Amino acid sequence: MSYHWARLILMGWGDLGVYGEPSRETPNLDRMAAEGMLFPNFYTANPLCSPSRAALLTGRLPIRNGFYTTSGHARNAYTPQEIVGGIPDSERLLPELLKEAGYVSKIVGKWHLGHRPQFHPLKHGFDEWFGSPNCHFGPYDNRARPNIPVYRDWEMVGRYYEEFPINLKTGEANLTQIYLQEALDFIRRQQAARRPFFLYWAVDATHAPVYASKPFLGTSQRGRYGDAVREIDDSVGKILHSLQDLGIAESTFVFFTSDNGAALISAPKQGGSNGPFLCGKQTTFEGGMREPAVAWWPGRIPAGQVSHQLGSIMDLFTTSLSLAGLEPPRDRAIDGLSLLPAMLQGQLMDRPIFYYRGNTLMAVTLGQYKAHFWTWTNSWEEFRQGIDFCPGQNVSGVTTHTQEEHTRLPLIFHLGRDPGERFPLSFASTEYLDALRRITPVVRQHQEALIPGQPQLNVCNQAVMNWAPPGCEKLGKCLTPPESVPEKCSWPH
Amino acid sequence: MSYHWARLILMGWGDLGVYGEPSRETPNLDRMAAEGMLFPNFYTANPLCSPSRAALLTGRLPIRNGFYTTSGHARNAYTPQEIVGGIPDSERLLPELLKEAGYVSKIVGKWHLGHRPQFHPLKHGFDEWFGSPNCHFGPYDNRARPNIPVYRDWEMVGRYYEEFPINLKTGEANLTQIYLQEALDFIRRQQAARRPFFLYWAVDATHAPVYASKPFLGTSQRGRYGDAVREIDDSVGKILHSLQDLGIAESTFVFFTSDNGAALISAPKQGGSNGPFLCGKQTTFEGGMREPAVAWWPGRIPAGQVSHQLGSIMDLFTTSLSLAGLEPPRDRAIDGLSLLPAMLQGQLMDRPIFYYRGNTLMAVTLGQYKAHFWTWTNSWEEFRQGIDFCPGQNVSGVTTHTQEEHTRLPLIFHLGRDPGERFPLSFASTEYLDALRRITPVVRQHQEALIPGQPQLNVCNQAVMNWAPPGCEKLGKCLTPPESVPEKCSWPH
Repeated sequence: MSYHWARLILMGWGDLGVYGEPSRETPNLDRMAAEGMLFPNFYTANPLCSPSRAALLTGRLPIRNGFYTTSGHARNAYTPQEIVGGIPDSERLLPELLKEAGYVSKIVGKWHLGHRPQFHPLKHGFDEWFGSPNCHFGPYDNRARPNIPVYRDWEMVGRYYEEFPINLKTGEANLTQIYLQEALDFIRRQQAARRPFFLYWAVDATHAPVYASKPFLGTSQRGRYGDAVREIDDSVGKILHSLQDLGIAESTFVFFTSDNGAALISAPKQGGSNGPFLCGKQTTFEGGMREPAVAWWPGRIPAGQVSHQLGSIMDLFTTSLSLAGLEPPRDRAIDGLSLLPAMLQGQLMDRPIFYYRGNTLMAVTLGQYKAHFWTWTNSWEEFRQGIDFCPGQNVSGVTTHTQEEHTRLPLIFHLGRDPGERFPLSFASTEYLDALRRITPVVRQHQEALIPGQPQLNVCNQAVMNWAPPGCEKLGKCLTPPESVPEKCSWPH
Repeated sequence: MSYHWARLILMGWGDLGVYGEPSRETPNLDRMAAEGMLFPNFYTANPLCSPSRAALLTGRLPIRNGFYTTSGHARNAYTPQEIVGGIPDSERLLPELLKEAGYVSKIVGKWHLGHRPQFHPLKHGFDEWFGSPNCHFGPYDNRARPNIPVYRDWEMVGRYYEEFPINLKTGEANLTQIYLQEALDFIRRQQAARRPFFLYWAVDATHAPVYASKPFLGTSQRGRYGDAVREIDDSVGKILHSLQDLGIAESTFVFFTSDNGAALISAPKQGGSNGPFLCGKQTTFEGGMREPAVAWWPGRIPAGQVSHQLGSIMDLFTTSLSLAGLEPPRDRAIDGLSLLPAMLQGQLMDRPIFYYRGNTLMAVTLGQYKAHFWTWTNSWEEFRQGIDFCPGQNVSGVTTHTQEEHTRLPLIFHLGRDPGERFPLSFASTEYLDALRRITPVVRQHQEALIPGQPQLNVCNQAVMNWAPPGCEKLGKCLTPPESVPEKCSWPH
């Protein structure tokens, strides 16, 4: 019997002590790494949350599973309240597949794969849910825009800023503690029933607006963002201890990672660190997609190891299936591979990492080489308004504010020598030509075989927002939706 | 009986695995940290090598010990071959003081405190020397400029690029291996004689031109610079093992640090990483002066600890004296403090870190706050010629190319929230005013009490270069100096 357990958090590569954060405030995550395996070269599937989470649960790139937009060239998109789309029924999600092996699955925290009824996590394989369908932006007035509901399973049990308060002034909110208790309770129940389980702990801290519970507020050297990191770190420690106390640590595979790079636009007060990497969330530079990643499985994964395997969040799909003795679906392309050979035998597998924005392939990494086919941070217009995804960073010709095409002659970086993507290889160098020669067929093969999914993130409609989620009647919290007016979503960057 | 042992290497904060370097190629240094204490907030005394090394050995800021220039405003200076000055006789160096407690001292590697006869390390307390007085630039033609000599004690035994080859094309040189053997041999001899010793292992790798010995060439994911780092890491491992094998690990205090930040101007092929910090060598931003620092003393310093003590390279002077049961000289200002309370009792001492360029106080750090009184990277003229100390980084109003004065209203950063010095606090904020209120008296006290030393780095003369070092006759390697023409040294940045 084996258990899996993943957590997904909006945190930057450089936010963990073990990844060099100078304040060293993550003793539990650092211990997790010391007892497990660190992946310094681990990637999410998109520089934004929703597509990455869809990729984690489907094992497929957002371009395949539909979590992208075509309403502009190379635009990031996600699932705000007005989004009409969500995870298609045709996608087979990890919890749905794990059910075949008798697993009970729970998601705690932010779902973000669509909030309309057909996209509900319990319709896509999860047995339990405690959390919210969208980000905890707000507070809203419930007139122009409703506050985000919090669900227990099929029904809402309140809304953020109402039954689940977040004090934007003090930064106090109890949410991470509630999510922690939900996780501990679920684990205890499954252990007691001796059921194999999959827990997807997707807390919404450290997303802006940043919050922490009272005991953590003001405890970090890094401000409120650091307080939130400390609370998550503490929670991880408690969860790992609980697995040990229950005697199931050696049959539980635990993985910690993040769904996009730290949002530098919120720095320094509400944003984290991407260490030595370029830019952050929203970009296809390393700071946008390289993530902290720690695997923990006492007695199976040797302690204190570092794997240079190029890893992807989509690998958690395939790895989890493999742990459950299942095969990934054969009727579709799966981008994740099983990390078991890397984790248990120290093997290194050659594989590309693709960086998309919308349906545009922006870049690819193969081995140590990263080729950019398109560069863009955001528009001059946005940048001049103070929207900056790369504060303090400026690499000429690389962090561009116009969409620059390099498809014929990509910018290539050696990420070992130059993890910060500051020094493109000379087009005339043998090294450039060799790297290009290796990369070109891999990209061609990918593009030729690619069957894009139906884009889910093109249409918005105020009427689909969380006005009257199931359960609202019991709480007297139903709101009246406005008239239905479908429109093209606006994705400015 | 106790031993001390320091090593000083040109490496950036971000070059060690334990500080988050993604390739994780420093297993021995990482193990040293796991067995000892890591200082994430440790500083050198100057963004350049010579002044930092003078500060280490005197426990005093360069502005006091004379290792600075006044020949321009806020200029960095060091000891190239044409420098006339060097360490003044009036300075009392660590090995000289340790002699009072019966210590035998050796320097292995680059001295850099002046190469004229009166500045010879054996005239300043060292009992043995194997290494060079200057950097291993070159190769020179021995006409306009002599190749740098390598000394054994009082006499040269050859020159770089001649008897001590460095192949600039392949990057091969055996120097680190030679320096390693010198260290191991010295340790063995002192242990056999049961003499307390001070070994200053100041190898000149990873300084550009970067070299490594054959077994290390091509082994790093980070290119030649990484090869050099790996060789140093391996050497450190061998030295620590040797202490353990000889049974003196528990009576030997070992400290690893660097004399300035990674030289980003040499990146990516010959330069390292300053992790999340701003800019590098030559600047008074964190990337120029915050250094990797690991203390190791099995059985005394508890394993796996992190100290947030603001530490300075000058503390190694005071700490070493303290370990030998000696007091620092009372007839002069000493800037170093003993780190023993931090290392042995986990104490935190409040103290400022001063950042100078020449005799200009550029910045100060107190607690988490850093105030810049002057900002400058280098001149527009240099910058336009491609001399860039902050490649890929550009913080408006901070990484300036004109010397910007902020003495009345310093730019203040919170280094905990903003280690990259990207977001100056608002002048109008309470936090700014509180920080300024704490910093102002500390700076005033420092400046009022300051007695600058005679500046040693103002005068240059081609005739003082290493034309005919002692011992050259025996080797037939004496060169004829040109006419003596003292002139003002040119310090462009």
